[in-house]
Amino acid sequence: MLPLHRHNLRVYYDDTDSAGVVYHANYLKFAERGRTEMLRALGLDQRSLRDEDGVVFAVRRCHVEYLLPAALDDALEVESQVTEVTGATLEVAQSVRRDGRELARLAVTLVCLTHQGRATRWPARLRALVDGKSGARVPHEAEARR
Amino acid sequence: MLPLHRHNLRVYYDDTDSAGVVYHANYLKFAERGRTEMLRALGLDQRSLRDEDGVVFAVRRCHVEYLLPAALDDALEVESQVTEVTGATLEVAQSVRRDGRELARLAVTLVCLTHQGRATRWPARLRALVDGKSGARVPHEAEARR
Amino acid sequence: MLPLHRHNLRVYYDDTDSAGVVYHANYLKFAERGRTEMLRALGLDQRSLRDEDGVVFAVRRCHVEYLLPAALDDALEVESQVTEVTGATLEVAQSVRRDGRELARLAVTLVCLTHQGRATRWPARLRALVDGKSGARVPHEAEARR
Amino acid sequence: MLPLHRHNLRVYYDDTDSAGVVYHANYLKFAERGRTEMLRALGLDQRSLRDEDGVVFAVRRCHVEYLLPAALDDALEVESQVTEVTGATLEVAQSVRRDGRELARLAVTLVCLTHQGRATRWPARLRALVDGKSGARVPHEAEARR
Repeated sequence: MLPLHRHNLRVYYDDTDSAGVVYHANYLKFAERGRTEMLRALGLDQRSLRDEDGVVFAVRRCHVEYLLPAALDDALEVESQVTEVTGATLEVAQSVRRDGRELARLAVTLVCLTHQGRATRWPARLRALVDGKSGARVPHEAEARR
Repeated sequence: MLPLHRHNLRVYYDDTDSAGVVYHANYLKFAERGRTEMLRALGLDQRSLRDEDGVVFAVRRCHVEYLLPAALDDALEVESQVTEVTGATLEVAQSVRRDGRELARLAVTLVCLTHQGRATRWPARLRALVDGKSGARVPHEAEARR
Repeated sequence: MLPLHRHNLRVYYDDTDSAGVVYHANYLKFAERGRTEMLRALGLDQRSLRDEDGVVFAVRRCHVEYLLPAALDDALEVESQVTEVTGATLEVAQSVRRDGRELARLAVTLVCLTHQGRATRWPARLRALVDGKSGARVPHEAEARR
Repeated sequence: MLPLHRHNLRVYYDDTDSAGVVYHANYLKFAERGRTEMLRALGLDQRSLRDEDGVVFAVRRCHVEYLLPAALDDALEVESQVTEVTGATLEVAQSVRRDGRELARLAVTLVCLTHQGRATRWPARLRALVDGKSGARVPHEAEARR
């Protein structure tokens, strides 16, 4: 299984709303940054996947639980864990934390699309990375956590 | 049951991303605008709820299925349907459509918070509106649709 | 001269920040929506300019004066006025108003780019619209207003 | 004079638009993050200014020149330089760079507001920081750069 990835980020004014907290949709942005950095740490960046492999990642499904609010200037940590990879989908369990406390929990299903928007298989170099480290398909923990 | 509410909106550049489609987190913004307009159509605006009733709505849980992409200049329709109201939560089933075709489907659970962020009961005038029109608590269709 | 164009919009939670007002960068989004609707009212939409004429509009320069804050649920009006068109640039003076009072004033310089990002001349159908209605090049009022 | 401050950031999907580049309004977000980190490096964070000093920074005026586009996955650097401080305003010259090349140049005028939105003087600890390091009021370089 790929190791848990951690990405640190800071909350700025543009992330917040007039209720005084981080706007709920912005946790999806934080999570997307976390997944992008997890890929980058594996040697995969979204731009080369698009330009060299001709594919983009698309979110097919997303489930978010909002547990505690984040506020301006908070230092947050996004944890990302690939929980399952099939030929067509990638499941990622993510948490947004502040000082270790979980503020939001996400389960995200990604698919691989061609430039024309058709579903396709993951590029071999992504599969190799995941399979090489995982050995076997892991159970879908994201489901269990819901 | 409250009637289905429809809100029209247009996709602008700031809603899209460099994959050429609407950025996935922005469907949550569209859905929030739809819920806000649904409330406004019932005579409730978020500002008076905050200033007069001392409460804000917060998203406690959100599930999104992305079915088809939206693109620049698309005219979209956000459908919102309250599916269940309890003392503490409000469940809304929502769809984002273009020419009738469903692009995204959301199930959103809202809670009512005080300014201090504590959960509280819905203001009486919101309950009256919902109960007066619904008669009885409706089953949680959002769950059934998942 | 092209007529003054007015576009109405509503302030939602995602437009605001935790200072309780509309986040300053979002006035540029409002202005861009106003320009897009001004073009659409002339029969030009950004997607067909991109797909049929092979060009996109890009902002080359923007000056914004913030006069009064806007807040959640405000009904705003974006006024847009083309003040000068040359072969390479389009100058637009814009105001964001609430109940007639000016909240922000913008002067925006647009350029026309090919898909490869090189500056190019405006498509003939855009020039025809502007020239046909303006007769002569108008002075650059945006500059005078600064 | 306060030293030039540099802040590094990465371009993610939510920063881009369907023209394939960073959406123009988002440079104002990048600049705001740069200013926030410049303040933090001086020992001032926006939340304590708000909660302890009872003030918020507001943008009164912003001028942006867009020179070259940024794209997905770009590593950017935001340079921020305070160019003038008066009792009521703070002028900041900013540049967004990639590998040293300037992509955008901003001149931003900030004012200090009370919670009620009235203009007020800068908190003493902010003045002390700026005056202690600057000795004298510096000329308004942002104007000269336009």
